[in-house]
Amino acid sequence: MPLIEYNDEYFMRQALNEAQLAFDEGEVPVGCVIVCDNTVISRGHNMTEMLKDSTSHAEIIAITSAEEYLQSKYLKDCTLYVTVEPCVMCAGAIYWAQIPRIVFGAKDEKRGASLYGHLYHPAAKVTSGIMQEECSKMMKDFFKNKR
Amino acid sequence: MPLIEYNDEYFMRQALNEAQLAFDEGEVPVGCVIVCDNTVISRGHNMTEMLKDSTSHAEIIAITSAEEYLQSKYLKDCTLYVTVEPCVMCAGAIYWAQIPRIVFGAKDEKRGASLYGHLYHPAAKVTSGIMQEECSKMMKDFFKNKR
Repeated sequence: MPLIEYNDEYFMRQALNEAQLAFDEGEVPVGCVIVCDNTVISRGHNMTEMLKDSTSHAEIIAITSAEEYLQSKYLKDCTLYVTVEPCVMCAGAIYWAQIPRIVFGAKDEKRGASLYGHLYHPAAKVTSGIMQEECSKMMKDFFKNKR
Repeated sequence: MPLIEYNDEYFMRQALNEAQLAFDEGEVPVGCVIVCDNTVISRGHNMTEMLKDSTSHAEIIAITSAEEYLQSKYLKDCTLYVTVEPCVMCAGAIYWAQIPRIVFGAKDEKRGASLYGHLYHPAAKVTSGIMQEECSKMMKDFFKNKR
């Protein structure tokens, strides 16, 4: 049996599993995991409809949970994986948590934070396009069903 | 006895009361109230240290609470009062909640959302400088004590 390779695809698949949970609950399907030392320390998926809370994006839930787990308001040794590019709110949250690496799947052409420049921590590195097709397809399928 | 005049100063004073609670708890003293039909429907003050949660800004707490109260993820008939200019994260949250009016006291020259343009909902109106001196003084007093 081959060893698991802990690479960006592996963790993005975990984020996609979270997005699927959102999809199944009728939420815009965005999922997020936060990883520290090759271990997923928190998970989140969009819950804005269920909670009637516009701040309950996947990333916010995952950040709050990771900080609770680490008992620290900084996530300086973590990587955040999210299926769709963070919005301005989430980019601001990622900034405050000082997350040094952000990996996302599909770009958000309408509300992605990159429309406003680099809102993350100045030293943060961004990798995009990991499992882009799967991440993007889930969003398209969701909005197709809504019409 | 004079009738209470429900104006911006009146509600900013409520936000300052919240900021004082943060100050007393050793938190960066920012306070927020959300007002609908001249009634404060939610309050929040910065709790990032106590909760070890970098997303627990005054505005996020107040928005989540107001949406819970109204059972709606939109706050389209509300005004948000906050003692210090919202950061990028909070401006993004205000955008999603579609809050049409934002009133703040002191400007945040370093991390205020206005450094990145208008991040609020396109139609949102911003009023600044209400009780600016009191709001600013509380921040200065806090950081003076920290040194």
